[in-house]
Amino acid sequence: MDKNLICITSASNPRIRQVIQLQKKRREREAAGLFTAEGIRLFEEIPEEQLEQVFVSESFLKREDAEIILEKAAGKEVISVKDSVFASMCDTQTPQGILAVVRRRDRTMEEILDLSENPFFMMAENLQDPGNLGTILRTGEGAGITALILSKGTVDMYSPKVIRSTMGSLFRVPFLYIEDMAETVTALRERGVAVYAAHLEGSVPYDQPDYTRPSAILIGNEGNGLTDRSADACTRRVRIPMEGAVESLNAAMSAGIFMYEVHRQRSL
Amino acid sequence: MDKNLICITSASNPRIRQVIQLQKKRREREAAGLFTAEGIRLFEEIPEEQLEQVFVSESFLKREDAEIILEKAAGKEVISVKDSVFASMCDTQTPQGILAVVRRRDRTMEEILDLSENPFFMMAENLQDPGNLGTILRTGEGAGITALILSKGTVDMYSPKVIRSTMGSLFRVPFLYIEDMAETVTALRERGVAVYAAHLEGSVPYDQPDYTRPSAILIGNEGNGLTDRSADACTRRVRIPMEGAVESLNAAMSAGIFMYEVHRQRSL
Repeated sequence: MDKNLICITSASNPRIRQVIQLQKKRREREAAGLFTAEGIRLFEEIPEEQLEQVFVSESFLKREDAEIILEKAAGKEVISVKDSVFASMCDTQTPQGILAVVRRRDRTMEEILDLSENPFFMMAENLQDPGNLGTILRTGEGAGITALILSKGTVDMYSPKVIRSTMGSLFRVPFLYIEDMAETVTALRERGVAVYAAHLEGSVPYDQPDYTRPSAILIGNEGNGLTDRSADACTRRVRIPMEGAVESLNAAMSAGIFMYEVHRQRSL
Repeated sequence: MDKNLICITSASNPRIRQVIQLQKKRREREAAGLFTAEGIRLFEEIPEEQLEQVFVSESFLKREDAEIILEKAAGKEVISVKDSVFASMCDTQTPQGILAVVRRRDRTMEEILDLSENPFFMMAENLQDPGNLGTILRTGEGAGITALILSKGTVDMYSPKVIRSTMGSLFRVPFLYIEDMAETVTALRERGVAVYAAHLEGSVPYDQPDYTRPSAILIGNEGNGLTDRSADACTRRVRIPMEGAVESLNAAMSAGIFMYEVHRQRSL
């Protein structure tokens, strides 16, 4: 491990500055094709071929299990920094002393379509809340979605907050940002996938469609729901019935209830 | 409205100090039998008979619709405070200029049991995240639960964060804190209610039980799940199946998926 260990003491070092940019800016992540992952748990989930660089704090290196944790970084650059510098690089309030720079794995629509002969896609348009996006991916893994398809107006999956809330699902569930949601919906339908728009004005209860066939569920923005253009492109508008005076459910909750209804039908 | 309008300019006024205590301390809320609700939307949801006092900022009183919003406060104390004093009373970062002191409506187990001949109770043990508790109550209203039953170790429903995340369901869905969860489970079973423990080691998938009969679902703490004592008291342990490498779902998400399965069965 010592062979590839580099020490940095200054917070103005260009490598440190790059990490801070990657943490803060979606554009930076997209331009570099990289993102960051903080903490031991997430580090353990990173596929080796995507791992680029590892930053550790001096305190972290004093842990008894530091070498074991860093085993997967063999042959990669491991950079040791002072605790104070490490804290300045991190998005979390109580950093665990390890932060990885990870290569993105961007998929194409063709790759996504080749994943399954009977796919179940979760789709989201212009979702804004990082916690919602992370929770949808995590719950989606549990419900066995084939992939998550996101409009380009959706919050960045690679932002530190979203990554944390995915609990590692980010490395296991394929996802894709697309340019035009209505066009993508139409393309999916032409490939035989029924696309259901989750809509407060849907006439069909969410448990009525037959999801055992190739299916997709599309949910919209937290405040405004789906754009008409995208909803109109779908096969049908479906809704989750609500008792009482509830006007809507949380977006991630709606997605989870939909996804587990699909899972339930496919498990019968 | 002018008749009962009181003006306070000092942040050290005892009434202001009481509000701050009510916002911060569960013990204070319990001792006084009161809680606070911030914002116009929540204010509109408060049942008139529970409204005790209203605090408004000077800016709020300049709104064109201030009188209309304050109509329900007729006969109650309306207290005007300087904007800076108002901000110091509030838990939110961008206060809307209205904060109500509200009388709690604590229910007894007997009242809860009298609500329905075929009840569906959601129950939670030692839930710690305010957002989770609020989301469960809001989703529970949508799913038509009879009431939410909480162990005394669960985060306070009347804390400002929880109240906000209930989106007003707090005023519409009956809930109750109980002393001993295992004893309550046993008492419910003696009354003919089947109580299902949501458990990662459950042998029965969550969609197998017949929830059209008197039923309750019990979920546990975010990190540790249910105590063995409570789980053992239940009729059966049930689980939500999970694909991939997901170890658990978010607690509110699990509760939502369970509650909507009950709703689905009861709607067939």
